[in-house]
Amino acid sequence: DISPQENYFSRETLDRLSGKRTDKAWLEAKQREPDTVYLIFSNLSPMVSTSQEDDGAAVESKLCRFRYEAVKDLLQKPATVLIFLGVEKRKNPSPSSPEEGIREAPAWFAFSTNEDAADLVKRCREKNCSFPKMPNRDLLKLNEEEAGIVAQARSVLAWHGRYSFCPTCGSSTKLEDGGHKRSCLNSECRSLKGVHNTCYPRVDPVVIMLVIHPDGNQCLLGRKKVFPAGMFSCLAGFVEPGETIEDAVRREVEEESGVKVGPVQYVSCQPWPMPSNLMFGCLAVAISTDIKVDENEIEEAQWFTRQQVIDSLFRGASPAFNIPPRQTIAHQLIRHWIGINANL
Amino acid sequence: DISPQENYFSRETLDRLSGKRTDKAWLEAKQREPDTVYLIFSNLSPMVSTSQEDDGAAVESKLCRFRYEAVKDLLQKPATVLIFLGVEKRKNPSPSSPEEGIREAPAWFAFSTNEDAADLVKRCREKNCSFPKMPNRDLLKLNEEEAGIVAQARSVLAWHGRYSFCPTCGSSTKLEDGGHKRSCLNSECRSLKGVHNTCYPRVDPVVIMLVIHPDGNQCLLGRKKVFPAGMFSCLAGFVEPGETIEDAVRREVEEESGVKVGPVQYVSCQPWPMPSNLMFGCLAVAISTDIKVDENEIEEAQWFTRQQVIDSLFRGASPAFNIPPRQTIAHQLIRHWIGINANL
Ligand SMILES: Nc1ncnc2c1ncn2[C@@H]1O[C@H](COP(=O)(O)O)[C@@H](O)[C@H]1O
Ligand SMILES: Nc1ncnc2c1ncn2[C@@H]1O[C@H](COP(=O)(O)O)[C@@H](O)[C@H]1O
Ligand SMILES: [Mg+2]
Ligand SMILES: [Mg+2]
Ligand SMILES: [Mg+2]
Ligand SMILES: [Mg+2]
Ligand SMILES: [Mg+2]
Ligand SMILES: [Mg+2]
Ligand SMILES: [Zn+2]
Ligand SMILES: [Zn+2]
Repeated sequence: DISPQENYFSRETLDRLSGKRTDKAWLEAKQREPDTVYLIFSNLSPMVSTSQEDDGAAVESKLCRFRYEAVKDLLQKPATVLIFLGVEKRKNPSPSSPEEGIREAPAWFAFSTNEDAADLVKRCREKNCSFPKMPNRDLLKLNEEEAGIVAQARSVLAWHGRYSFCPTCGSSTKLEDGGHKRSCLNSECRSLKGVHNTCYPRVDPVVIMLVIHPDGNQCLLGRKKVFPAGMFSCLAGFVEPGETIEDAVRREVEEESGVKVGPVQYVSCQPWPMPSNLMFGCLAVAISTDIKVDENEIEEAQWFTRQQVIDSLFRGASPAFNIPPRQTIAHQLIRHWIGINANL
Repeated sequence: DISPQENYFSRETLDRLSGKRTDKAWLEAKQREPDTVYLIFSNLSPMVSTSQEDDGAAVESKLCRFRYEAVKDLLQKPATVLIFLGVEKRKNPSPSSPEEGIREAPAWFAFSTNEDAADLVKRCREKNCSFPKMPNRDLLKLNEEEAGIVAQARSVLAWHGRYSFCPTCGSSTKLEDGGHKRSCLNSECRSLKGVHNTCYPRVDPVVIMLVIHPDGNQCLLGRKKVFPAGMFSCLAGFVEPGETIEDAVRREVEEESGVKVGPVQYVSCQPWPMPSNLMFGCLAVAISTDIKVDENEIEEAQWFTRQQVIDSLFRGASPAFNIPPRQTIAHQLIRHWIGINANL
């Protein structure tokens, strides 16, 4: 067996303190504290400062962090959407030192604004600041801690962007609970009687699975038309209402590849804030092997041998395919399979 | 180890044939076929016929099934929402008998209507027909196969009921894809550019966990005010955006009981169509034991010994608490823990 992997986008460095979301006075006081951190989002991208490695190839991004004084004018604008992310988890709580203990941990907020991006960037003292254009690629350049924070912030801000009207009656809604709730402004609306999911951010469960050949030594990978040339990855699909993740795995694999699946085993999950998916990574054992791809979704699907996968993972001379980057749960699932023995 | 449990609401007896949802001609032909089955929903309850056991206590429900001819007038009404559920999975596919092979499996549809419930009930030839009033209790009386079908149907119909306006622009929407999609009627709407979750049914992931005491011989159960007297169950809570199920378990347990959790292990999941939750059942190992309940959510939480749990499960003389019914994943999780050895 292999120790539990940690997936990109899944590290929790903040304590969400959900109980404080309804405490308006506490939130307002926190907003003004000097060590409170603000992240600025434009078009669902966070402002980052980018550093080029010496070889010009690898690039790292760091979130641009702002203090209250530097953004308070933006917080007043009517189009700004502000959310409370939480307070920093104390890494070394030192109850022995009372002063440390009393000082509360710094709070984090994120907000989206539609002010001019070039003007926003000028507010930052870091070098090479920008709002990256391709989240699927550019948000993978953060460090693990910041990626976890962006996962929460981007999902919730994306929800505000798409869910500003009440789906039950079509009225406008207002933001509540530190940005974790929206309530209908029509006092007659059914959504205000009882508790309804229309008021809360949406999380879309998705299954992503490595299908293992009945012989235990090959796995099924597919490619979508939009993938970079040569790249193959795990099959994936949205979980439907009234379905378990195990049945969703069986259904999606058969739909997309024609392969029938028997046992399914959950491995780990990964938040994927594009905009708000939760990917459930599974191993799935095939009970048939003929491939018939659904051409609407998949361009090609193929069984690859364990050796071909090892060559791709560890960059053999001329690998049979390119594996997705390590930040994806697909990569981690494939690596997990290589790490366990051949007979499931 | 224990063989994978099957949870109530999770049996898939229909093949959803999602590829056929966009094939209008096929769907319309299927609607009219003589062996097609229709389920009628009123107020998000399916019409069922109820049988009383001899002792008057236990009660079983069966879905009332209708043919096209018996409901075609209702299908014409503008308020009716019709969804395609799938076709029956062949239990014994007999490729040897070609006639069997050619005949397609019966299709199932469900629809909701706001016609008078008493009038609707008169359409059925079964005895004791009704639309049950308390889904949380009454939908647990179906057999496993029908429960799985209701899980899909009720979730999707509930989504149509609450999401009839476009959350992005507030316009009306129209039903598409055999009832599995809603699209905005405002041709300028952003939700029509690219693929957006606003158009698809919502599934809300929830974690539900049995927290095991560090000594391995006690588990943490809580009760909400609304529970029947004496009942204790597993803690549970909605997964938030940007969060793994494992972190959601740790966060919700600490929020609701003050207990800190270390390792978390997924066991199985259960669709819970009230209205559209997907419950992820986990075992969680506590790393602290003091209980401090969040009184907004939980009335009481308590460590129970393995023996107390066994007495409740198998109806000992005077059990320390009442366990939730076998149809709940909470019950199955507790039973699973009793079935494995004390040291996780
Ligand atoms: N929550 C959702 N968000 C986006 N697309 C969805 C969603 N649910 C279903 N879909 C549909 O699923 C397709 C992708 O297929 P798959 O990921 O294999 O299930 C999309 O193109 C949509 O048509
Ligand atoms: N999708 C959702 N549907 C309903 N309630 C939600 C949802 N997300 C968050 N909540 C809130 O979560 C509360 C229940 O707490 P819990 O189940 O412990 O997370 C509800 O009373 C709501 O305030
Ligand atoms: Mg698919
Ligand atoms: Mg799909
Ligand atoms: Mg897919
Ligand atoms: Mg809770
Ligand atoms: Mg909660
Ligand atoms: Mg709860
Ligand atoms: Zn409303
Ligand atoms: Zn719209």
